[in-house]
Order: sequence, then structure tokens, then C-alpha cells
Amino acid sequence: MNDRVQEILSWYGSDSPGTLTNISRLLNHGRLAGTGKLVILPVDQGFEHGPARSFAANPPAYDPRYHFELAIEAGCNAYAAPLGFIEGAARDYAGRIPIILKLNNKDALLEEKDPTQAWTSSVEDALRLGACAVGFTIYPGSAERFAMYERIRGLAEEAKRSGLAVVVWSYPRGSGLDKDGETAIDVCGYAAQIAAQLGAHIIKVKLPTSHIAQDAARKVYEKEKVPIESLADRVRHVVQCAFAGRRIVIFSGGPAESDDKILAEVRGIRDGGGFGSIIGRNSFQRKKADALKLLDNIMKIYAGQVS
Amino acid sequence: MNDRVQEILSWYGSDSPGTLTNISRLLNHGRLAGTGKLVILPVDQGFEHGPARSFAANPPAYDPRYHFELAIEAGCNAYAAPLGFIEGAARDYAGRIPIILKLNNKDALLEEKDPTQAWTSSVEDALRLGACAVGFTIYPGSAERFAMYERIRGLAEEAKRSGLAVVVWSYPRGSGLDKDGETAIDVCGYAAQIAAQLGAHIIKVKLPTSHIAQDAARKVYEKEKVPIESLADRVRHVVQCAFAGRRIVIFSGGPAESDDKILAEVRGIRDGGGFGSIIGRNSFQRKKADALKLLDNIMKIYAGQVS
Amino acid sequence: MNDRVQEILSWYGSDSPGTLTNISRLLNHGRLAGTGKLVILPVDQGFEHGPARSFAANPPAYDPRYHFELAIEAGCNAYAAPLGFIEGAARDYAGRIPIILKLNNKDALLEEKDPTQAWTSSVEDALRLGACAVGFTIYPGSAERFAMYERIRGLAEEAKRSGLAVVVWSYPRGSGLDKDGETAIDVCGYAAQIAAQLGAHIIKVKLPTSHIAQDAARKVYEKEKVPIESLADRVRHVVQCAFAGRRIVIFSGGPAESDDKILAEVRGIRDGGGFGSIIGRNSFQRKKADALKLLDNIMKIYAGQVS
Amino acid sequence: MNDRVQEILSWYGSDSPGTLTNISRLLNHGRLAGTGKLVILPVDQGFEHGPARSFAANPPAYDPRYHFELAIEAGCNAYAAPLGFIEGAARDYAGRIPIILKLNNKDALLEEKDPTQAWTSSVEDALRLGACAVGFTIYPGSAERFAMYERIRGLAEEAKRSGLAVVVWSYPRGSGLDKDGETAIDVCGYAAQIAAQLGAHIIKVKLPTSHIAQDAARKVYEKEKVPIESLADRVRHVVQCAFAGRRIVIFSGGPAESDDKILAEVRGIRDGGGFGSIIGRNSFQRKKADALKLLDNIMKIYAGQVS
Amino acid sequence: MNDRVQEILSWYGSDSPGTLTNISRLLNHGRLAGTGKLVILPVDQGFEHGPARSFAANPPAYDPRYHFELAIEAGCNAYAAPLGFIEGAARDYAGRIPIILKLNNKDALLEEKDPTQAWTSSVEDALRLGACAVGFTIYPGSAERFAMYERIRGLAEEAKRSGLAVVVWSYPRGSGLDKDGETAIDVCGYAAQIAAQLGAHIIKVKLPTSHIAQDAARKVYEKEKVPIESLADRVRHVVQCAFAGRRIVIFSGGPAESDDKILAEVRGIRDGGGFGSIIGRNSFQRKKADALKLLDNIMKIYAGQVS
Repeated sequence: MNDRVQEILSWYGSDSPGTLTNISRLLNHGRLAGTGKLVILPVDQGFEHGPARSFAANPPAYDPRYHFELAIEAGCNAYAAPLGFIEGAARDYAGRIPIILKLNNKDALLEEKDPTQAWTSSVEDALRLGACAVGFTIYPGSAERFAMYERIRGLAEEAKRSGLAVVVWSYPRGSGLDKDGETAIDVCGYAAQIAAQLGAHIIKVKLPTSHIAQDAARKVYEKEKVPIESLADRVRHVVQCAFAGRRIVIFSGGPAESDDKILAEVRGIRDGGGFGSIIGRNSFQRKKADALKLLDNIMKIYAGQVS
Repeated sequence: MNDRVQEILSWYGSDSPGTLTNISRLLNHGRLAGTGKLVILPVDQGFEHGPARSFAANPPAYDPRYHFELAIEAGCNAYAAPLGFIEGAARDYAGRIPIILKLNNKDALLEEKDPTQAWTSSVEDALRLGACAVGFTIYPGSAERFAMYERIRGLAEEAKRSGLAVVVWSYPRGSGLDKDGETAIDVCGYAAQIAAQLGAHIIKVKLPTSHIAQDAARKVYEKEKVPIESLADRVRHVVQCAFAGRRIVIFSGGPAESDDKILAEVRGIRDGGGFGSIIGRNSFQRKKADALKLLDNIMKIYAGQVS
Repeated sequence: MNDRVQEILSWYGSDSPGTLTNISRLLNHGRLAGTGKLVILPVDQGFEHGPARSFAANPPAYDPRYHFELAIEAGCNAYAAPLGFIEGAARDYAGRIPIILKLNNKDALLEEKDPTQAWTSSVEDALRLGACAVGFTIYPGSAERFAMYERIRGLAEEAKRSGLAVVVWSYPRGSGLDKDGETAIDVCGYAAQIAAQLGAHIIKVKLPTSHIAQDAARKVYEKEKVPIESLADRVRHVVQCAFAGRRIVIFSGGPAESDDKILAEVRGIRDGGGFGSIIGRNSFQRKKADALKLLDNIMKIYAGQVS
Repeated sequence: MNDRVQEILSWYGSDSPGTLTNISRLLNHGRLAGTGKLVILPVDQGFEHGPARSFAANPPAYDPRYHFELAIEAGCNAYAAPLGFIEGAARDYAGRIPIILKLNNKDALLEEKDPTQAWTSSVEDALRLGACAVGFTIYPGSAERFAMYERIRGLAEEAKRSGLAVVVWSYPRGSGLDKDGETAIDVCGYAAQIAAQLGAHIIKVKLPTSHIAQDAARKVYEKEKVPIESLADRVRHVVQCAFAGRRIVIFSGGPAESDDKILAEVRGIRDGGGFGSIIGRNSFQRKKADALKLLDNIMKIYAGQVS
Repeated sequence: MNDRVQEILSWYGSDSPGTLTNISRLLNHGRLAGTGKLVILPVDQGFEHGPARSFAANPPAYDPRYHFELAIEAGCNAYAAPLGFIEGAARDYAGRIPIILKLNNKDALLEEKDPTQAWTSSVEDALRLGACAVGFTIYPGSAERFAMYERIRGLAEEAKRSGLAVVVWSYPRGSGLDKDGETAIDVCGYAAQIAAQLGAHIIKVKLPTSHIAQDAARKVYEKEKVPIESLADRVRHVVQCAFAGRRIVIFSGGPAESDDKILAEVRGIRDGGGFGSIIGRNSFQRKKADALKLLDNIMKIYAGQVS
């Protein structure tokens, strides 16, 4: 195994060989195998936003097999989705791409001030479907957050006991935050810290802005002159917030944007020492050939094949 | 086993042979056996609307044996009902009609803005009563929906482990939706997607209108020109929303209507690629001879014996 | 075993021989043994209304032994009470009268708009105390009803697995109903249906009035001309609502009234095909000799010894 | 074993020899051994009112060993306290005084309109610490009461299965009652009945006043001319409310009062057929010598050695 | 083992040899080994206040290894932290410093009037990570306190059964208290009592002021002339409130202050018979050399090497 993967695994000294094996599967699969970087395809938008909003722009994506194929052809490190999408094709593509089973989900038919997610699958499901990791979303800032942390506590313990890796989507929102606060740099760094303290192996956060949401934090950022001006600065800070870089932190995109903008963000993540990207809507909401081209360009940046 | 049933079973690659056997029982029973189409008799209205409202129009229907006989004589694929109605006659008709035990129910003695259902029987009940599937209702759009999804998660996992099939009645309602929204095409497609992502084998939804309830969805339907004008178009879209047609989606009627209207709807379901109908009040609220005649006409349409 | 008891047992085809044995114990005990009719002594008023309100009129009734003796001397089919009253004398009268352990109870020290009951004993208690059935109260119409139905679901399943019979007191009340609605004929029939669908073997309801509480129901009663004018008509309808008479339905009295009125009600129950009475306050709130005389007159009516 | 203890044990015919052994330990320990009377030292005020309010008047009482010594030297039947106080000295005094482990407790740092208690220790704790009984407080009249009854249900069942005795402190309070209602004679009798119906072996209530709180009860007390004028009358009535005297009912004091007043109350309890006293603050909030003297005088009254 | 440690262990007579072994590990480790005094390094501020607010002043502290090294180099008795920080370095420093795993945590992204904490790790986690104790925070005065006490009840029982020690952070706050009340002497003593009654082996409280928050308490403090003027008086009183000094009580600092002020407080704790300090922000928010110097000075005071 190459040195960088060995180095990363060394950060997880409290985990079992089973869990290390699954983390290494994620790191050693696809075009970025061995680089310590990851590009993951996540497809929970059918549940989170609705099927037409997610797939009408590229109808083959209604089919659960499509995303397995896209992730495999693009050379992604892993494919992440809710129970139904995984059940719908896991046998057909067994062993061809690492799977992250997303254990909780939310729909958009009722918006709540303090959101939460429903628990929609289990660690046992992950095992029977051949997944190498389980994933959960938490909403720091929501009045429901403690119930979410507690549920993760039990499920992460069960996952680790079963030799699986644990991925946490840490997305601040809820009555403790306004819209700008959700992506503020202090909040984003805090979200990464919470996920790390909860025992996540891999942490997914949104790209932060230079806004600071909490007064008590602002004083410290100003006094200590924490650099947060460039995207690379902010990525570097968020990675630092996740145990001084000793946890894998990856960043999510958002709604469809221009390719140039996406690639600029990827360069920022790379320059700040981020571990990679999770690219959903920007990959499956365009024709497969276009998606493969974009993912190819992203991976080239992470692989150091282009500047 | 005929080709179409084999094809349908191939979509459920993550399920056990036990569950596939039960799905095939549903598909291979009655007059539509082997066609890939289903007509199911559901009788939970005694619980949901009250006994007189449900059965006074045809008093023999107060008796739990009546519905077994009606389903058997009509050649339905299955009979679905709550615990009491199944317990009341399952021994008398054991082995003569596939049973779907409905695990949750609601009464009409108190209407709530965000409705839920009570859990009234168990997977173990289904097994001891010889059922081949369990059924649940969910209310996407209700503030109670996540608790419903979570309960289904556990029970569906238990059902699958026990070799049973899982049927979800996905009926949007609650404070997230107005009356028109409950049957809007975007909402209906979303309801089918949620049930599919929760791991349902068979999904029951209401026939959708061409109304679009959510602004974010409307933009997509318009931009992508998703065809929703005819009933067949809408059925086709809902079936697409359930994993590009790789999940069995059936449609429910509603209160008693003219036979012509019912048969027109059935033709729309057939033309749109729907998998069949679940016909409750329109069958047991009329004399048995009349019900058998209507069901005969419906099955002829699905069987391709009439246009 | 006589024909009528055999016939009744035949309705419970999904139950185990153990449960059938216990139902037959109830039907084959006391003066009405073998008639298919039941008169049961229930004494939960100490808990529900308070001890002085219940027993000061006849102080020997403070003693848990009193009610066993009254039920035995009167030749009742069974005695029903909460944990304490049963524990207080079950050893002394073991084997002399079938016992129904009431598993939930409510006190009158705080009245709530949407009432519920506390769970005060268990199926395991019933078994160790030699009971042949467990009993629960539900309040259809209360916002707490679904929690009640769900608790019964689990406990009834456990009771059936243990070979016990299940008795449900179905008493509509709560914010879904006004005072008149609690005893309306449509609501009473609905209450019987709900208990039957929940899997009750024996259903206890209040005697209904000819009032109809729900508009949607009124339309049906009027259109289908359901007879509800005489008490016998209404009893017949409620029995029909419990699976066309294939579940045992008994009726409760209420606060102390004149003996003539009680006996007239009993005749109405008999004429309408009801299965018997549950007589609490009208039996233990008078001197024992008087109670025995009243119960004797009641049983004579059910036994067909008087008109 | 003497006749009175045998007689008392005969009331608990549904309990195991293990539980009877523990009830007899309470009745056969200390200066009142064999009389059928009990004086118990309860010390939960550190938790319920705070340490300084409880122990500053007599600082040795901060030490958990103090109360064991006081109870032993005074010849009490038992010592009752929360987990910490029992853990703090149980090994030092093992086998020298029967212990009642109080399983729930409340603090005074936040007063709530509908109070409850926290569950702070377990039946398993009672067993490992050598206790012969577990104790719980309930608050009839509080909106939280049903949750309290239900928790007791499970814990009492577990305690009985483990051969322990069950003591219930039945203290009416909460939004269903005003201040006077908490000690009204009807409410106090009702509180004793509830504890008895919940399966308590020993019931602790407050001394009642002659006030009647509930209108429905007042009618009965007046119509049936229930004697409640003297303290002895009221004690007799409360004992009657606990299964006609077939459950052990003891009475609590309250804040420090004059010795004469305390002794007068004890005479009232004795004359009314009460089973004894539970004396907390009036014993440990004075110097040990004074406490021993007061307890000596109390026991003399119960033992019939003085009038 | 030296006399003082033996004496302290003698207070925990109800605990297993396994738990005593772990308590003695805490008392016999580091520079204060055998003195009966403790200085513990706690680092949960990353979770509780956010990473930048906690670590930006001394960036090496973002790394989970830093705190293990600081605690080891300073000769602390133990290191306490949440799951992530312990998992992040426990293997690297296994056996070199006793670990207290903090089982619950709170974040600062939403402030609530009645705060609680989320349960973020388990007793099983503590065992697999080699911890010798588990720690919990409670908030006496919060409407959520009973749920916190109850969760501790179960986890402390499990911890004791597993031979671990139990540490409780008892921090009054919530709607029952105003800001001054949180550190009032009566409230602080009460907080220590509650933790002791809940079965804590080691109790951590804040340093109290001479303010008295509760009227009922003030009367007693005044009447009994409880000395609370000097810090040493107040420490002595709080220690008395924890079972007359028979439970280990340690005191926390707070935000960064001048070294002189910290050392004066430490002298007050020592003079009042406190068992030590828990020093978080004042140690890891300065450069390591400075922290070691401060901790050295603190330990010298506790060790009696300076006045």
C-alpha cells in the first residue's frame, strides 16, 4: 500500500482492522486510488428534493443502475445513496465500486424551522448490501441536533463494531443560524469539529464563505488573525478544525454551476489541503458524456495532472 | 415461470429468495397471474371511515369472510386488510388468496392537521396468519412523516428478513400540502420516489392530477417539458419516478364513482404502464354480483382482452 | 361442550388452543355457562373514581375479597379488576372464578381534555395471578388514542402468544367528540369495529343512544335506513359492527339506577343479540343480598328463564 | 413468628416467599419487632431540599454513616434513602438495619406546576446493596402521574420477581389540586387506594385534614356520613381506603414541630389503626440524643407502653 | 499504597475492586500521586465552544495528540475529553495517562433556556479505549435535568458493573436559576449533593461565590451561621455537602485569567480541603511551556511544596 494511504490510516489508531480495511478501500479505488484524495458520487436528491427536480434534466438518472455506472465509468472512489437506490442495483454491480449507504434522509414536502432527518436504513442493511461505509447527515444549529448526534452515536458504534467506516455530512442549519450563518467560516469549522468529536472517519462539509456568524468566534478570528480570505485559506482552516488535518474532510458543491466555477473551487480545495469533493447534481444532472468529462477534469486537478 | 414475472423479479436483486417467492405469489395468483399486472382488494375502510359508512350499503360486507370470498371469486391477486379482518377468516380461507396484512391504521373520530397512523399489527402477526406481504401507509407532507418512515424502516427490515414482501401506501397529506397538492403530479411522483427509496417492493399511490404543487418542481416540469397532460402521461411519469419503472406501482381509486369513469381510469393506468389497481369501496360497497362484474371488466383491460 | 359455545369458538379461527380454552372458560363458568351469554363483575372504580365514591355506600366492598365472593355467589362468568384488587385475594379464591386482569387504569384527580390511561400491570402479571384474560380501555376520539392502540397491539400479541383472551373496553371520548357523541350510535358502532380490528376477542361498549355524531355517518344511516330507533335495534347494529356478530360484544351500565331501568336495558341487549352485561356500580354499591337479587334477575333474562 | 406478623403476611397471598421474607424483616426488626407497627427513618431531604437546608442544623448528618447509626440506635424498623447515601455506608452497616432504597428523587432547583421525579437507582442497585425493599414517590394530581405509575409498574414487577418489597410514597400534588387539596381527606384516601391498586406492599401518605377537595367525593362523604372529624377517624378512613386495612399504611410527619404535637399525631395514628410513622426531619435535624429521645417516646406509644 | 489513598478508597465501600482499582489509578498517577489531590486536564471546549475559540490561541492544540502530551508532561492525574479526541490518540499514548471519557456534550450553535447535552459516547467506548472513568455533565436547574439524571443512572450503573469510575460535572443552569444563582454557594453545595446522591465517585463543580440564590436556603445559612465568607470557607462547605467530605470534589476554573488569580484560587481550594482542580482553557490556550509552568505551580501548592 502506498505511503499516503498508510499515513492516513495511521490517524485512525482506535479503529479495528476491519474499519481500516474499508477506509483503505475508499482510498484505493478509482482514478484517485492511492493519492489520498477522493471524489465521491452522492445521489440522495431523489429523496431530498424529489425525483423530477433531480432527474428530469437527464432522465436515465431515474434508474438506480445509472449512478453505479456513472461512478464506475468516471473512476470515483465511492457511490453514496439511500436504501432504495442501493437495493435497486447493488447485486448488479457488486464489488465494482465502494458503496456508502446513507442511513438518514429528509424530504422537501414540509419545511421545518428546526429540521431533522428520518432514519431510513440500518447498519445491518449496509452489511447485507456490501457497503463499506455508512453515512449520516447532522444539522448543527437545529433544535433537533442532539437527537441526531445521539442516534449517530449508537449507529456509529455499531458500524465500527462491524468493521464499517463512518461518514458524516455536517450541514449547519436551523433556528440557531441565519442563512449566511450556514456557510460561515466559523460555523463550517465548528461543524467539522463536531463531526470529528462524534467519531466520524470522513467528514463532508459545504465550502465556507469568509462570513463569521458568531460574535464570540469573531473576536478570536480577529485577535488571532486566522487567515480566511481565500478559499484555500478557508479550506485549510476547516481541515485544521478537524483535528489538525488528521481526519478526512471533503467538500460538497451545490446546485449546477458553470464548469469553470466548479473547477476553480476544486483547485481551492486542493490548495487548502482538502481531501476531495463530493459531486452530485453537477454530475448526474447532465448527459453522461458531459459528466464524465467534468469528473475527469476534477480528478486531474486532485491527481496533480493539471494545475 | 413466465418471462414477465421473471423480468419483474430481476429488479429486486437485493432481496432474498423468500421475498422473491412472495412477490411472485402476488404476481402469479388469480386471473392476472403471469401478466405482471395486479388487481388487489383492500378493505381497511371499516377502521378508517367506520363500519356503517363502509358496509351499510352492502351489509354482507360487515362479515370478515365476505371479502375473502369476493377476492377469491373475482380472481384478485391479493386481499389486504387490518389485523381483525384477517384474523377473522384467515383459517377458513388459508392458502386460497395471497394476504397483505396492513400494519398501521387510522380512525376518523378525530381529524388532525398532521395525521399519522397507529401501529396495529406486526410482522410476526403477518407470519402467523400466512400473509405474503405487510403493508403500511405513510403521509409525506405531515409533520409526523419521519416517525412513520422510521417505523417502516424497522418493520420493513424485519419483513424482508422474514421473507415477506413490503407494500407501501404513499398518500401525501398534512400541513406541508393543501388539498390540491395531495394529488398533484409532482407530489404524487415524489411520494412514489420516497416509498421506493424506503425500500418498498410494491407502491400504491393515488391517481395524480396535472396540478403542480411545489414551485421548485414547477420550474423543472416546465423547463424539461415533462409530459403530464393525459392520465396515461401522468401514470407513466409516476412509474418513472419509482426507479424508472423498476418498482411495481399500483393506483387506488377512491369513493364510489360511475363504472365508466373507473374503467377509463384503468385504461389510463394500463396505457401509462402502471402495474394495476387497488379497488376497495368500488367493489365491496355494491352487491357481490355487481362487484364481480366490474372487477371482471377491469381485469379484462389489464389482461389485454379488451381495449 | 355445548353447541353455542362451540359455534362462538369457531369465530376465532386464528387463535391458539390456549386462547380458545380461556375464552371457553369465560363462556362455561357460572349460571350462564353454556348459553353464550356473559355477566361480568368489573371493579375498577376504586382506581377510576376513588375509594369513598366507590365503596362508602357499601363498606364491605373496600375489601378485595368482597368482590370475589360477590362474583362467585352471584354466578358471574368472570371478575375484572386492576392489579391490586386481584393480588389482594387471588390466592384465596384461586380457581373459583375466571379473572380478567385490567392492564390499564386512570384516576380522577386530574381531568384531561384528551384522556389516556396508565399501564398498571402486565401480561406476565396476568399469568402469575391465574387470570384467563387481560383487559384494556381505549378512548377512540382522544388525541392519545393511537398510543393506546399501539400499546394494546403489543400486549394483545403477547397475551395471545401466552394463551390468554383479550378484552377491550372501547369508550369513545376526547377532543374529537362532544358529550352526546360519546354514546352516539355511529360512534358506538365505530368503537366496536375498532376494537374488533385491533384483535379483541371480547368487546365492551356503552349502550348507545339514537344520536348520530358524525355528518359523514349520518348520510349513510339515513340513505341506507339503518334501524336505530329501539335499544334492541341499536344493540343489533353494534353487534353487526363487530364483524357481523362474530365477536363477543357486551354492554356496560353506568351509575346506579332503578332496577326496572337496568332490567329493561338487559332485555334490550338480549333482544338485540348482545352477548351480555358488565355490571359494576349497580352490583357492589348496594348490600350484597340486594346485589345478588339484581344479578339473579339479570341472569334469568339472559338465560331465557323470564321474558 | 408472632401472630400479628403472620396475620399481616397473610394479606399478601400473591407474593413470593422471597418478598414475604423481606416484609417480615421490616416487621421483625428493631424495638417494634413483632408488633405489626413500624417507625422508619427516611433521609432523602438532601436531594429533595438541598444539603444545607437538611443538615446544617445538625452537621453530623451530612455524613451518610450518621443516619445508619441513628436508625440502628433508635431501633427503627428500617432506613430509607437515595442511592448515594446508601452506597456511602451500606458496607459499614451491612445486616444491621433493613434498607429501603428510594428509586426516584426530585430536587428543588426548579419548581414545576406538574412535578415528577427522576429515576435515580434501580432494582439491581437495591439487590447489590442488600436492601429489602425499593421505594418510589408518585404524585397523583400531576399531569406526569401516569408516567410515574407506569414506571412503577415495571419496577415493582421486577422487584417482586426479585423477592423485594415495594413501598410507595403517595403524595398528591400538581395542577389537578390546590394546596389544601394535597392533604384533603378524600384525596389522601384516594392516594392510598391508587398505591394499593398499583401493587404496593407498604403505603406512605401524609396525615390528612378534614377538608374535602373534590365535589363528587363530598357528596358521598356527606350522604354516607363517613366519620372524618378526629385525626383518628381520618387515619381509620385512609387505612380502610387501602383495601379495608389489608395493606400496611404509614404516615409521614413534615417540617420540624414541637414534640408534643408530634406525639399527639402519633397517638392519632395509633388510635386510628395506622401502622406507624416515617420520621425524617424531626429526627435527623436535632442532636442525636434528642432524636433518640423523641423516637423512644414515639415507639413507646406504638408499642402500647404509654397511652 | 499510601495511607491517604487507602483512606479515600475506604469511602467507596459499595464499589467493586475493579472500580476501586480505577479510582486508585487516578489518585496514584502523575506528580500528585499518593497525595489524595488531583489535577486533571479536560478538553471538551472544541465541542462546547467551537474549535477556533478553543484552539486558535495555541494552534498545536487542534491536534488530539497535543493534549495527551501536555497532560503527560505536566504530570496530571488524568486527561478528560469527548470521543473524537480520545479516539484520535488513545493508541499512541496507551497506558501513559489515565483517561476520562466524557459521555455527553453540548455545542454552542444554538443556546437554549433549559439546556441539555447530547449523549455522544458509551461505556463500551470507554472500555475499548482504555479509559478508567466515564464523565457526564448535568445541569441542575434546567427543565431537562431529570432526563440527564436518569441517563446517568443507567450509564453509571453500567460503568460500575464494568469496573469504571464515575465523574460528574455538576453545573447548575437553566430556567430555575439566574446568572448569579449558577455559582451561588447554596446552589453549588446542592449541585455537589445531587451528584453524590446520584452515585458519583468524583464530583466537579465550579468555585462558588458567597451569593445565596434560594430564599429557603438563605434562612438556614443565616440561622445556622454557616461560614461562607472566604473562598476556603465555601470550598469547605461544598466538600461537606458531598457527604461530609467522603466524596472526591474538584473545582473548575473558567476562562483565561491572570496566573496570580488562578493560584490564589488553588490555595483557597487547598485550604478548604478541596481535592484538586480541573484546568482546561488556562492550560491549553497558552504555549505549552507556559502551561507546564502554570501547572507546575498549581501542583506545588497541592503537594504542599509551597504555601
